[in-house]
Amino acid sequence: MNRYIQRIEALRTMMASNGWDAVIVGASDPHSSEYPATRWQQVEFLSGFTGESGDLVITPDHAGLWTDSRYFIQAATQLQGTGVELHKLRTSGTPDIPRWLPTRVVPGERFILAIDGLCQSVASVNELKAELAKACGEDGYMIVDVPDMLNPLWPFRPEVPSTPVKTVDQESVGRTRTEKIEWLRSFLNGKNCQSMLISALDEIAWLLNVRASDIEYNPYSISYLIVTTDQVQWFVRKGDGFDVDSDTLDSFEELASDSVDIYPYGDVCRMLMPDSGERLYVDPATVNWTIWSQIQENYEDSQVETGKSPIPLEKSVKSPQEISAMREAYFEDGIAMENFLYWLDSQMNEGKTLNEWEASEKLTAFRAAIPGYMGNSFENISAYGANAALPHYSTPGKGSAVLEPRGLYLVDSGGQYLFGTTDITRTVPLGECTELEKEDYTLVLKGMIQLAMAVFPEGTAGCQIDVLARNALWKARRNYGHGTGHGIGFWLGVHEGPQQIRQNFNSQPMLPGMITSDEPGLYREGMHGVRHENVILCRRLEDSEFGSWLGFETLTLTHIDTAPVVKELMTAEEINWLNSYNDMVYRRLSPRLDPHVTAWLKAKTIPL
Amino acid sequence: MNRYIQRIEALRTMMASNGWDAVIVGASDPHSSEYPATRWQQVEFLSGFTGESGDLVITPDHAGLWTDSRYFIQAATQLQGTGVELHKLRTSGTPDIPRWLPTRVVPGERFILAIDGLCQSVASVNELKAELAKACGEDGYMIVDVPDMLNPLWPFRPEVPSTPVKTVDQESVGRTRTEKIEWLRSFLNGKNCQSMLISALDEIAWLLNVRASDIEYNPYSISYLIVTTDQVQWFVRKGDGFDVDSDTLDSFEELASDSVDIYPYGDVCRMLMPDSGERLYVDPATVNWTIWSQIQENYEDSQVETGKSPIPLEKSVKSPQEISAMREAYFEDGIAMENFLYWLDSQMNEGKTLNEWEASEKLTAFRAAIPGYMGNSFENISAYGANAALPHYSTPGKGSAVLEPRGLYLVDSGGQYLFGTTDITRTVPLGECTELEKEDYTLVLKGMIQLAMAVFPEGTAGCQIDVLARNALWKARRNYGHGTGHGIGFWLGVHEGPQQIRQNFNSQPMLPGMITSDEPGLYREGMHGVRHENVILCRRLEDSEFGSWLGFETLTLTHIDTAPVVKELMTAEEINWLNSYNDMVYRRLSPRLDPHVTAWLKAKTIPL
Repeated sequence: MNRYIQRIEALRTMMASNGWDAVIVGASDPHSSEYPATRWQQVEFLSGFTGESGDLVITPDHAGLWTDSRYFIQAATQLQGTGVELHKLRTSGTPDIPRWLPTRVVPGERFILAIDGLCQSVASVNELKAELAKACGEDGYMIVDVPDMLNPLWPFRPEVPSTPVKTVDQESVGRTRTEKIEWLRSFLNGKNCQSMLISALDEIAWLLNVRASDIEYNPYSISYLIVTTDQVQWFVRKGDGFDVDSDTLDSFEELASDSVDIYPYGDVCRMLMPDSGERLYVDPATVNWTIWSQIQENYEDSQVETGKSPIPLEKSVKSPQEISAMREAYFEDGIAMENFLYWLDSQMNEGKTLNEWEASEKLTAFRAAIPGYMGNSFENISAYGANAALPHYSTPGKGSAVLEPRGLYLVDSGGQYLFGTTDITRTVPLGECTELEKEDYTLVLKGMIQLAMAVFPEGTAGCQIDVLARNALWKARRNYGHGTGHGIGFWLGVHEGPQQIRQNFNSQPMLPGMITSDEPGLYREGMHGVRHENVILCRRLEDSEFGSWLGFETLTLTHIDTAPVVKELMTAEEINWLNSYNDMVYRRLSPRLDPHVTAWLKAKTIPL
Repeated sequence: MNRYIQRIEALRTMMASNGWDAVIVGASDPHSSEYPATRWQQVEFLSGFTGESGDLVITPDHAGLWTDSRYFIQAATQLQGTGVELHKLRTSGTPDIPRWLPTRVVPGERFILAIDGLCQSVASVNELKAELAKACGEDGYMIVDVPDMLNPLWPFRPEVPSTPVKTVDQESVGRTRTEKIEWLRSFLNGKNCQSMLISALDEIAWLLNVRASDIEYNPYSISYLIVTTDQVQWFVRKGDGFDVDSDTLDSFEELASDSVDIYPYGDVCRMLMPDSGERLYVDPATVNWTIWSQIQENYEDSQVETGKSPIPLEKSVKSPQEISAMREAYFEDGIAMENFLYWLDSQMNEGKTLNEWEASEKLTAFRAAIPGYMGNSFENISAYGANAALPHYSTPGKGSAVLEPRGLYLVDSGGQYLFGTTDITRTVPLGECTELEKEDYTLVLKGMIQLAMAVFPEGTAGCQIDVLARNALWKARRNYGHGTGHGIGFWLGVHEGPQQIRQNFNSQPMLPGMITSDEPGLYREGMHGVRHENVILCRRLEDSEFGSWLGFETLTLTHIDTAPVVKELMTAEEINWLNSYNDMVYRRLSPRLDPHVTAWLKAKTIPL
């Protein structure tokens, strides 16, 4: 019997002894992190499935994994022999979990569902409650919250990660933590609240000017934060307190001098107790169900004000200091990218055998050589040929595809630096390209350029300009299924909000100081994939009699290969943009490149 | 003492004897019509103000008119000597009516506000209630609904209009009223409702396949409609029933044979009485306050289902029959337009003195010559030079501007025909144009063309493609303050929903069969105005592996003058579009034009 079957059986024994009819095990962690630590890879522990998105439901007679189309193939393979059945989300005839559970209800019997509320969002539990209430009536079901439910079955379950806490040089971000905390207090005051609970890790890192490595790719400390009128309580200490490293001790000392008190991670629930008349502000979109239940229990309704956290918006508008540091980050990142692209070109010219994984590792090595490099900002996507048609391709360490001297190679990557976060995609011709590859390459490039050139009145949201990146593709009846742009943090997450450039309605206007990606693409299954990604800074332009205007400055500094461009498909304006961009890249980077790389780049940037 | 002062004093006497603290007189009619009949021009009756938008508030010591910036100058002039003060909406320091009224509340005294609920929307009264409740508490105010409140002060008040009712040739619209009513019943069935009240006049006209002329420019009968599971009750008969003309009698007979029963207009409230267990569907966005109160009074809460009327969406998707009739309407309208533009050109060439009003009248005469012409679809905008900078310019009958042989003349107009409704704007150079006029002309034209050429996936809403019409202007830091496109009815309103092409978020996707305007513009106060308007039909294109695609067919057939076009500002694609459009107009229309007009049009459509 394989170990997953054993584990699920152990869970069923626990269920039977507690009288639970079903258990949901979610893919999330207590902070809705993009990359949960191994401690919270509970779905993998029970089923072996390693995809980023997928929830398990276990009942006495069924074990099912619900995941979306990105993971259908992977899940089918990984679930073999585990007895776990794959439920394909958003395919017809497949109810999702909230609509599937009611089919398991036995009429007349109370249905008891157990969850690990630490790893469930408030919205998801509310949806479960609504569907179960519909099926069984308000009294016909019960949801039992069992935090860390799997602990008894998981003897060597990893602890909550605890990596050294670093403080950020406050001058480099432009605002001290004290200033940020005062700003937050004045926001709370405006809401007639005396305290706020923050559990989103990027919000905490930004507010306290602290960084760590508890989460892969994201420089966060796993923690909670309570800010009150006169206190700042950071729930970050793990273990017994004697194992704290000296960097962290220094950081805690600096924080203490700014009146930030350090508490054990597990103490947050205990501290969520209101003083009389105190009102708590909380964003239900980021808090987990266990904490939310605690708040519901300890506070009167009138003592809780729910609403959006104001931090994501404040954080998205970079300070002048952050902006100049980000310009430096994209400069250094551009050096690494051009060195990599030169190396790649040489390898191919020399006829060396090279696979996607080796290319990816080489790119990481170029980045790692940059002083202040703190790691990659996400997993490199290094994809050749048909592999590039998978927008979320994960390059395998063993047996990845060998690069051939033809067609397109796509590399999407980024770095975390003490002075910023980068994200860039280049699609590189490795030799002759088909007409269709060239056409797709050109149409996607037109979109990237059109968005980069956009000028728009103050108040314009990303969804109102997204079509500029798609128009050329749409006219050719082609499209891509992902958003065009996401916000990018300053030495924080490479994906952040609240602004987006995509079709979904999101009323958040683009604001001067926001840094966003511009990354249209095109994917042809089994053939090739194209994505061009630059990162653009929203800037204020000169006013005119028709209003106040915004536009973009491209931060990314890496040339765009003109070889596959079908010139006749480009407008004169687009060709101009491309030529001046490549020229600027050459002029800016060449003083720092080796002479042979400079010469190569000169040739690569000859105007179209 | 002028008559407005006298009338307001008479109203104050009525207020005093009833104990009312304030009266609101609204600009609307009981059906939220775009063009209320004179009976409901109550604001003009009391104050002399003739603008389309403006509400009066009378208190014992104040009379105020609230209107928006379009009417500031007009209101200031018309209110002179009336004692009515102008409140400029959306200027700083000017509270709107719901926020101004509370400033008139005397603490400790109950505030009594009287309204004519027939002419107030549900939303506006609810907003008044919310603000008054905030200021006085729930028991500190009362809103008295006095339908037709002004009757005692207005001895010769016009009756509710009653023009002949015509039925539509059911083959020309593709669906019989019986089919439409069955469709509506099945919608109601899905909502578990047995009846629906409809008070939007365009919805009634569409559903019953009837037309009349009770409203200016809009071919509607002022009426209410109740559709139940087995009855259709049309509340349309005005007067004593002996004054019905023979056309109307024929129509009523035809309707009776389709089981539509005719009732007196005033009987609707009396008939809003539920059978036991019956549930009524109503769209609170279109029903007036008096009717809404009646429903609240007669029905239990559980017997009323509120929601959007399904009719606007169903109506916006034209049937194949309506589409081919509309193509004919735009063909005939194009003939009238080209005859007009030829005549205009000749007059200017001959040095004749001609003013905006005369041009407008001539244009109407060309339309009126078309068999099946039923009137204009809105008031012609005939605007020369700086007057064209007012997007809603109303051409005065006396003293309108004389057309000079230079600069730009803008004409926005449309016809109602038995076979459709048209709307077109052309901006015409009358001679030499300034560089700025040419640039604006060209940039606006680029926008119109880009939107016309758009291709987009199924599910795309107007706000997601609006930027295509603005992008060229935005890049030059120019913009226009109105929407780009509105729906157009089939021999119905020239402005209809639910689709829109504008910046405001509106999730309604563009659907095949929808007919919408494409009318970007640019307005420079004191200088000139440009607007180019074509009407476009949304059509399904061929699917591709990337999805299902939609695009537009331009219905409008009137050449676009190339003389002011700055060719260097146009892309090759745009020039191509313009040349083929003008060529198509010439080829389609010339067989029906007089030879001298054909020759002139040939010259006008020489490719750029």
